Amino acid sequence: MSSNPLSPLPGQAGFKPSRPIKVGVLGATGAVGQRFVQLLEGHPWFTVTALGGSERSVGKKYAQAANWRLSANVPAYARDITLVEGKPGPDWDCEIIFTSLPGEMAGPVEEEFAAAGYKIFSNSKNHRMDADVPLLVPEINPEHSAVLEVQKKNRGWTEKGGFIVTNPNCTTIHLVLALKPLQDAFGLKKVMVTSLQSLSGAGYPGVPSLDIVDNVFPYIGGEEEKVEIEPLKIMGGLEAGRFVDSDFVVSATCTRVAVREAHTESVSVQLGREASLEEVAAALADWEAEPQRLGLPTAPARPVLLRAELDRPQPFLDREGEGAMATTVGRLRRCPILDYKFILTGHNTIRGAAGASILNAELLTAQGWIK
Amino acid sequence: MSSNPLSPLPGQAGFKPSRPIKVGVLGATGAVGQRFVQLLEGHPWFTVTALGGSERSVGKKYAQAANWRLSANVPAYARDITLVEGKPGPDWDCEIIFTSLPGEMAGPVEEEFAAAGYKIFSNSKNHRMDADVPLLVPEINPEHSAVLEVQKKNRGWTEKGGFIVTNPNCTTIHLVLALKPLQDAFGLKKVMVTSLQSLSGAGYPGVPSLDIVDNVFPYIGGEEEKVEIEPLKIMGGLEAGRFVDSDFVVSATCTRVAVREAHTESVSVQLGREASLEEVAAALADWEAEPQRLGLPTAPARPVLLRAELDRPQPFLDREGEGAMATTVGRLRRCPILDYKFILTGHNTIRGAAGASILNAELLTAQGWIK
Amino acid sequence: MSSNPLSPLPGQAGFKPSRPIKVGVLGATGAVGQRFVQLLEGHPWFTVTALGGSERSVGKKYAQAANWRLSANVPAYARDITLVEGKPGPDWDCEIIFTSLPGEMAGPVEEEFAAAGYKIFSNSKNHRMDADVPLLVPEINPEHSAVLEVQKKNRGWTEKGGFIVTNPNCTTIHLVLALKPLQDAFGLKKVMVTSLQSLSGAGYPGVPSLDIVDNVFPYIGGEEEKVEIEPLKIMGGLEAGRFVDSDFVVSATCTRVAVREAHTESVSVQLGREASLEEVAAALADWEAEPQRLGLPTAPARPVLLRAELDRPQPFLDREGEGAMATTVGRLRRCPILDYKFILTGHNTIRGAAGASILNAELLTAQGWIK
Amino acid sequence: MSSNPLSPLPGQAGFKPSRPIKVGVLGATGAVGQRFVQLLEGHPWFTVTALGGSERSVGKKYAQAANWRLSANVPAYARDITLVEGKPGPDWDCEIIFTSLPGEMAGPVEEEFAAAGYKIFSNSKNHRMDADVPLLVPEINPEHSAVLEVQKKNRGWTEKGGFIVTNPNCTTIHLVLALKPLQDAFGLKKVMVTSLQSLSGAGYPGVPSLDIVDNVFPYIGGEEEKVEIEPLKIMGGLEAGRFVDSDFVVSATCTRVAVREAHTESVSVQLGREASLEEVAAALADWEAEPQRLGLPTAPARPVLLRAELDRPQPFLDREGEGAMATTVGRLRRCPILDYKFILTGHNTIRGAAGASILNAELLTAQGWIK
Repeated sequence: MSSNPLSPLPGQAGFKPSRPIKVGVLGATGAVGQRFVQLLEGHPWFTVTALGGSERSVGKKYAQAANWRLSANVPAYARDITLVEGKPGPDWDCEIIFTSLPGEMAGPVEEEFAAAGYKIFSNSKNHRMDADVPLLVPEINPEHSAVLEVQKKNRGWTEKGGFIVTNPNCTTIHLVLALKPLQDAFGLKKVMVTSLQSLSGAGYPGVPSLDIVDNVFPYIGGEEEKVEIEPLKIMGGLEAGRFVDSDFVVSATCTRVAVREAHTESVSVQLGREASLEEVAAALADWEAEPQRLGLPTAPARPVLLRAELDRPQPFLDREGEGAMATTVGRLRRCPILDYKFILTGHNTIRGAAGASILNAELLTAQGWIK
Repeated sequence: MSSNPLSPLPGQAGFKPSRPIKVGVLGATGAVGQRFVQLLEGHPWFTVTALGGSERSVGKKYAQAANWRLSANVPAYARDITLVEGKPGPDWDCEIIFTSLPGEMAGPVEEEFAAAGYKIFSNSKNHRMDADVPLLVPEINPEHSAVLEVQKKNRGWTEKGGFIVTNPNCTTIHLVLALKPLQDAFGLKKVMVTSLQSLSGAGYPGVPSLDIVDNVFPYIGGEEEKVEIEPLKIMGGLEAGRFVDSDFVVSATCTRVAVREAHTESVSVQLGREASLEEVAAALADWEAEPQRLGLPTAPARPVLLRAELDRPQPFLDREGEGAMATTVGRLRRCPILDYKFILTGHNTIRGAAGASILNAELLTAQGWIK
Repeated sequence: MSSNPLSPLPGQAGFKPSRPIKVGVLGATGAVGQRFVQLLEGHPWFTVTALGGSERSVGKKYAQAANWRLSANVPAYARDITLVEGKPGPDWDCEIIFTSLPGEMAGPVEEEFAAAGYKIFSNSKNHRMDADVPLLVPEINPEHSAVLEVQKKNRGWTEKGGFIVTNPNCTTIHLVLALKPLQDAFGLKKVMVTSLQSLSGAGYPGVPSLDIVDNVFPYIGGEEEKVEIEPLKIMGGLEAGRFVDSDFVVSATCTRVAVREAHTESVSVQLGREASLEEVAAALADWEAEPQRLGLPTAPARPVLLRAELDRPQPFLDREGEGAMATTVGRLRRCPILDYKFILTGHNTIRGAAGASILNAELLTAQGWIK
Repeated sequence: MSSNPLSPLPGQAGFKPSRPIKVGVLGATGAVGQRFVQLLEGHPWFTVTALGGSERSVGKKYAQAANWRLSANVPAYARDITLVEGKPGPDWDCEIIFTSLPGEMAGPVEEEFAAAGYKIFSNSKNHRMDADVPLLVPEINPEHSAVLEVQKKNRGWTEKGGFIVTNPNCTTIHLVLALKPLQDAFGLKKVMVTSLQSLSGAGYPGVPSLDIVDNVFPYIGGEEEKVEIEPLKIMGGLEAGRFVDSDFVVSATCTRVAVREAHTESVSVQLGREASLEEVAAALADWEAEPQRLGLPTAPARPVLLRAELDRPQPFLDREGEGAMATTVGRLRRCPILDYKFILTGHNTIRGAAGASILNAELLTAQGWIK
């Protein structure tokens, strides 16, 4: 990292911050919190300096407090970090905070930290639909970060410089990654989706085993609403500081199946104009976007991997593709009712949650919002 | 069973055959064959007199030859039946034959038996779409049996009286059971369906465990085509001895999940006219049809069970409903793209296969086609 | 039911109570409680008159309060029973109470009811090892009920006639059913067992799905201790009102696997004397005991089913054997370290819990303890 | 890689071959074959030059012929390798051949290649128990490679220099890794083991899903015999060119559970002398052996990972430990019948198969047997 005058500037391909950026994680012991801790190990830009735990775990070492369930061991760097309370103050010696807090408490806590000057990258649903909060997917709406000026002004956070950026629901993220290149190329009118979601999406302890072994669970509270609404904001515009929803329609049915990681989605779309199967395939397979242009550390080389095999995608085989940051699409074919249909699979706690937040933080760093 | 002059006649509610009817099973050791053997135990009308096995198993006792996988033990009545070859002859001392033969061999074998005078009730795909073969679901198109006159004439089977009746693919059956009352009440234009199908649908050994544990398998060969085509014949008309397809459109995506029994289907429908949620619910819940009117032994009291709970239907909980002969529908709600959407679950090797054939045989018996 | 002077008397084969006996269930909404409600439907001797729920559910109809997870629907007889509080009083209009209460609260509640004159048949661990409480398996130690005289006297319950009878842990029950005929025939010195236990053994919500899909969970709190201790009491004697432990040794390792119902146990035994494989097989297969002699309604025709197939027992195939009240043993063969080894499987919430309690109540009824 | 006179010599810590060694894989499209292809990607010593396929696949590119099931894609280096026939000749331009051939054909094919001068590292059972073939686990019996002189002489392979080295059955490997440090420290008399084996151990298609979803499969053909016999050879001596079995006794029961990768084993041991729990724990945790001393590329830093948590080991969490080359042991405690008991878990297709063969090849390279 250097200040060499020839180094790329913010917004230019290859930009790197000139010094390590300190980051913290709120809700670090939870399922998504563990993914943050895992993905931030050895991150080239970010250095973890604070981990927040629940009241019960404050003061304990992370390795003791987290019921670590991702692999054999907590990453070495995090083992002995002492968990701190979820309140702004000297314990939180960092600029960026990644959050994954449960339920309704997330909203006010995030606001409190943003008001204190922290840059919040949130997985929680609370602020996603706020009129001055970007619901960001770097491949899709990187320019939505501009609303942060409105946000800071609205909320009196300008002086201290804090803000809140959110990422969408895990099912939404993978859906919009497949939809965006189609919208760009052909326009988009209707999207019918049935999801077969994984167990990790419900956290831990989450889904009782008796609900899912030899079973399908046909309902996930609030999920269908999110999948029907969030894409319209993400794939819509930002005009004069106001979000303008895109005008396609989504109909979603969300179910849970006995898969540990990666959601699968059966999708049918009606496009804005006629397009051949080859055109649709090319639009998906060739798509590159801002994170790829900028070369963000966590960006997949290709956001959408299109597979031709009849038996793909499969969550077990395809979830790790491109560092678990891509969406794999397969079985692309004509739909007798809408225009085309396909199946997609994507990792829900990496690209669908912790990795999404980290990529957002990388984008905003590369856009010059951090320092 | 009596010939009391006051007994109901064929076609009348409560009709019973005046004597036991002898039946056989072709393919009795297979997955669906085992269901036939199980369901025919103690059947009030039918008595099993012949079981056919593969070349390898002919001459063995059924209990030795069948790798029985439905419960602890082969039903006592069938244990010591000696498996016979799949060729018409004195070994097949019966009127009705239920068939569940693999692949392409099924078609010619069934024809050979029908030509020899046997009444064939087939689970195989081979003859389903033939112009003179009924694709029968007793609740839906009991009148399609009339085509058998054409069939017998066409094929020169009139004298000996044999015929072939088929039942649909397992995914189709449960779908049409939910669609028919809607079509009757409101008309039907479009049907979008994503299935989450069970392992037993692929027979034994069927799906390798490494393809399904912690996974979804996104493709089932030939299945989507069947689900898109069969409903149009079943729910269409029979005019002057010719089938006239119904004119709605089905778009199907079929996947496999780690469930032992019962397919789950996420369905969206466009109706022929406006209808309120209450009307749609009532059409489904109140539906009764010919097997219920006739009181056929295997008929469910209600072919469609509508559940109001948010977390239903579930294949584990709902597959046994009404003797595993009903389709359970839940999560009925408006669809933002078509009109209504819902999830259904139904037992695929009983209502979706062996039970379907037996109900067809009961219907034809009650209609007077057997004797 | 009659008082015909020729009817069998208590203790005689074929005895039946002369009138229906009223029973209640404490903890009726839980996993084992639901099994009680299911198994008591249409019971020939017992009639359910009271169901107890948690504080939160008292006053609600059973069908509303129970998150019923055994099949599509709550049995019709129980749907509209109003849940009552777990305190003795007029709401509990019954003689017998089956209990399945969680954790430490079970003990005092059971005592309170027994003190009030109720006959308690308990699934809870609290009183199992009490010196004056029978830990009863009707095939094994029916004579242990005699300790109830001591119990009633010790605890001052003689006048009102209440008592507590317990049944063992689910893993213990199936183990002792396989051990007892061996002990009787050959003596028994050592038992090494590794269990592969089902999910239902942990109740609902119980085991988180992320702990068991694509996994084995290697620890079940307190289970190994129970399996090592309980058999010694059950298979020991009762001398002059005092239990004398049997003197064999059990070493247990208990694990959890992704099976819904039925525990599997890998067992090696050292016998008290030389015995041929044929002798051991005959001892297991031919065993009949007191419940079979008495013809108790819930008793299996054979308590142990011995299978010769190499690939048996399997929990999926064998759990329903004999009304889910038998233990299936297979793979019987020599052990190079102890004498013989085998694998057993048995239903853990029927024979291992609710069915065990009901069989105990039937035994005590037939022994004349009720009335 | 250099011939610097200061470089470690064969047998010395840090030895590296002075040039890349060409290797091939026989049976490269199978389940274990795919692991070979995966693990050899980027191997510091070995370069893949030949992949052998079945008759059906000879002449096809590896990526087309292998039904790759380990991750999204075949490693890039192997995609375009053309599969060759399993016969010695110019297609096999390599010194070492790793084999994973099915069934009885493996033996003669391996001999044919060895006779032609190839160094064979075999996963197959055929030659494991031959009197002149080492059954090698580098941590345990590295000195057994000396028998190769006998082998070459016996079989007339001396001139061309070919030989056969085998590795044990996957269940055996993890068992002996846990037993060896105990044998070394305390002596070993008896070992009782019940395994809960994974699906990948049966290859692909392998275990039918209907045999394992909601089930345990209680039998694995030939497995128990291997687990009872192989350890005696591996942990025995080699005296004057003859193997002398160790004299402890193993009793094994092998079952299959719904786990994708990693076998779990419940083990009880009787030691040769008294030892405290602390001594036993230390013997396991502190164990280092020859591959660790030599610094072989694929060697785990520690062959046995001892965990203190009550809920470990778990196959899902622990299978990847130390590059999937370690055995994780937990729940170490006294056994009331033998001396100590514990549970172990280890990756069956890496440490238990392909990784084991590669480590054997590294050992023999470091011992100077290759060139």
